[in-house]
Amino acid sequence: MSRPKPLSGFPEFLPAGRFVENRVLDVVRATFELHGFAPIETRAVEPLDQLARKGEIDKEIYVVRRLHAEATDADELGLHFDLTVPFARYVLENSGHLAFPFRRYQIQKVWRGERPQEGRYREFTQADIDIVGQDVLASHHDVEIPLVALDVFEKLHKDLGLPPVSLHVNNRKLLEGFYRSLDVEDVTGVMQRVDKYDKIGPAAVIELLTGDLGMSEAQAKACVALAGISAPDESFVDDVRALGVTHELLETGLEELAALIRVARTSVPDRVVADLKIARGLDYYTGTVYETLLVGSEKLGSVASGGRYDSLASDGRTTFPGVGYSFGITRILAPLIGRKALIASRSVPSAVLVAVDSEETREAAIAVAAALRARGIPVEVAPKADKFGKQIRFAERRGIPFVWFGAGHDDSVKDIRTGEQVPADAGGWMPPAADLHVSVGGA
Amino acid sequence: MSRPKPLSGFPEFLPAGRFVENRVLDVVRATFELHGFAPIETRAVEPLDQLARKGEIDKEIYVVRRLHAEATDADELGLHFDLTVPFARYVLENSGHLAFPFRRYQIQKVWRGERPQEGRYREFTQADIDIVGQDVLASHHDVEIPLVALDVFEKLHKDLGLPPVSLHVNNRKLLEGFYRSLDVEDVTGVMQRVDKYDKIGPAAVIELLTGDLGMSEAQAKACVALAGISAPDESFVDDVRALGVTHELLETGLEELAALIRVARTSVPDRVVADLKIARGLDYYTGTVYETLLVGSEKLGSVASGGRYDSLASDGRTTFPGVGYSFGITRILAPLIGRKALIASRSVPSAVLVAVDSEETREAAIAVAAALRARGIPVEVAPKADKFGKQIRFAERRGIPFVWFGAGHDDSVKDIRTGEQVPADAGGWMPPAADLHVSVGGA
Repeated sequence: MSRPKPLSGFPEFLPAGRFVENRVLDVVRATFELHGFAPIETRAVEPLDQLARKGEIDKEIYVVRRLHAEATDADELGLHFDLTVPFARYVLENSGHLAFPFRRYQIQKVWRGERPQEGRYREFTQADIDIVGQDVLASHHDVEIPLVALDVFEKLHKDLGLPPVSLHVNNRKLLEGFYRSLDVEDVTGVMQRVDKYDKIGPAAVIELLTGDLGMSEAQAKACVALAGISAPDESFVDDVRALGVTHELLETGLEELAALIRVARTSVPDRVVADLKIARGLDYYTGTVYETLLVGSEKLGSVASGGRYDSLASDGRTTFPGVGYSFGITRILAPLIGRKALIASRSVPSAVLVAVDSEETREAAIAVAAALRARGIPVEVAPKADKFGKQIRFAERRGIPFVWFGAGHDDSVKDIRTGEQVPADAGGWMPPAADLHVSVGGA
Repeated sequence: MSRPKPLSGFPEFLPAGRFVENRVLDVVRATFELHGFAPIETRAVEPLDQLARKGEIDKEIYVVRRLHAEATDADELGLHFDLTVPFARYVLENSGHLAFPFRRYQIQKVWRGERPQEGRYREFTQADIDIVGQDVLASHHDVEIPLVALDVFEKLHKDLGLPPVSLHVNNRKLLEGFYRSLDVEDVTGVMQRVDKYDKIGPAAVIELLTGDLGMSEAQAKACVALAGISAPDESFVDDVRALGVTHELLETGLEELAALIRVARTSVPDRVVADLKIARGLDYYTGTVYETLLVGSEKLGSVASGGRYDSLASDGRTTFPGVGYSFGITRILAPLIGRKALIASRSVPSAVLVAVDSEETREAAIAVAAALRARGIPVEVAPKADKFGKQIRFAERRGIPFVWFGAGHDDSVKDIRTGEQVPADAGGWMPPAADLHVSVGGA
């Protein structure tokens, strides 16, 4: 076998990169659990007809079938392209065993057969949280969900050195009420075009609205004026009112969005913006919507998004409304790891290399390693009996900070960064806390 | 959508089951890292021609292609059916960036299109460790690897209540040397048939060897006599010698296996057995081989297996020998979780439910929750303002041990198991350590 080449769109990391990803996922998972979200994992495949229901996305589906499938294998399967479709199916399948409102998180790979490009992958990891109710779900959960997202991102920023985020929120009821009061019928059509505001600018959006949708210049200008409103506080409400439009649904949307902004500002100042151009294009949200930009990497687009669904799932008798947030883990990390903006302190977990001076003393070295591990210290034993200098270089190459010499007869440990070497006892010595595990941080 | 049915062979857990799986995986991962194994993750797909190379397994492969693939998409992909083939490819692809011997662990789903049955799944999680060298890999790693496996299983047994294991080891050099000294040519053929010893018994193995392979009665009996030898200590060496056969390769195998048994016995007594009927059927091992039985569930077969490959991978110039162990996580856990032999203490991570007595006080409840979370306590806030009794029942149903009342004005916390309620301060109160996180144990 000659040297294989990477597959475009299927990113893989070297061990140091995987350490970064694991640490990030640990923070994400721990934070989700602090907020009372329970873990689930769903299978990678769903029946193809369920995946294809969303229409627009069907060209991106990977079909899965057995190499020697028999003609009787009628049920075609596809790899899931998000974690929402599988979760909706899981809720219906298990609703009798779940307690509602059900709070779950799910961290898994998803697959999309899109053309690979900057920030787009064919296989990538998502981390989703959702709260789903049975028939009803209170609107305060729309406020709660972005606070969980902010808690995650603030920890990733402060503890691991990821860039800070700005969280942009809007409300589709607000948009729909506003559009309806202007006598717009194709509300979804307007949302899809307004959603391009950042990419193509307000003038081009007006052209789309008057062209494609045949709206009047006045209608189009009002929609774009609304989209232009953004504020880090409740002042956006006055800006909307100044446009002189009233509608019951608009009022509900304004109230919900104002409540979100007010609570979020007290929890985490300066991170949340009411941004009335956010519409989440083709996604089927029905109320609050969220997008997240990495400060300094805004052109990546939203790296974590979500919103409220009035019907996440329904079995005909019971409807399950939901609100959730989906974190694009690979989308956030692959560029940061790739350009070494986030790095691990070493490429192996070992804090200590136990040197072996001759093969006869290997068992003593193994005993020292076992004693250190019993106290939680990651250790490896030198694979080859070798001279002092070679053992040091072996550790250096992997970033292992300490080398243990004279195992079992003349024990000492050397910090190879400072050169300091001290007598040590395998039953008591500890490395400094900062060296015990691989640490992850900004470069 | 009517209620969906589970897909046979694709097990999924309720949240309480996923807590068990996550805790097990945390122990597995932490133990791998204590032994200096670095994490990697590979993509789910490999080129189909690489997967199909193993021959026998090709009927089990899932082929993956885009729903609307164009004719130009020539490269067919398949889901990996183990973690060894992807790891071998990863080593070749990245050999210039890895330090050898390279110690890695990998915990991922794999897929096999086999007919689902007890203990066999179409999607399941494996956890693999391997040590791979460049051109050479010392034989002491064959001793090291099962000690890591034992460390993992002893922790799962003692800390989480999984059944203990017995680890059965053999050496293919020993078998090959023995067979060659009997003038057997089809060494692999004999190994494959001897591997059925436990299933069909010694008499049937003799029949296979004399029938299928045309061996003499004396040859067949000698092979079966060897297979009948097992011992928890080095006494197996004398039992083999008593069969009166000598061969250079047999000697090497005996030495390697004896060294393994000797070191393993001093590390973890009573868990390792030299078992000379173990051959690992069709797998391409070239030296030491390992199998693992769960005590009390022996009929499940081996739940974790491995061995030495002289050539894990090769690019024509460099050969990469390896030795590894693969843990069948789903195979071990799905039956234990299914029959509730392993359970989680609650179905949500929350240690505390903060009650809400009226919607006006929700913000005070959120503030209490934030204060508790800041000190690492998993908390959720009641989704609905409700009476005392209903809040208690909400917590009971999920197994949340504590309910916080009077948030922000008359704070107290109640242990709903004992009924004890005490005044509490959100800035200082802690639950007992045993209640802080979901605990996992034998039922």
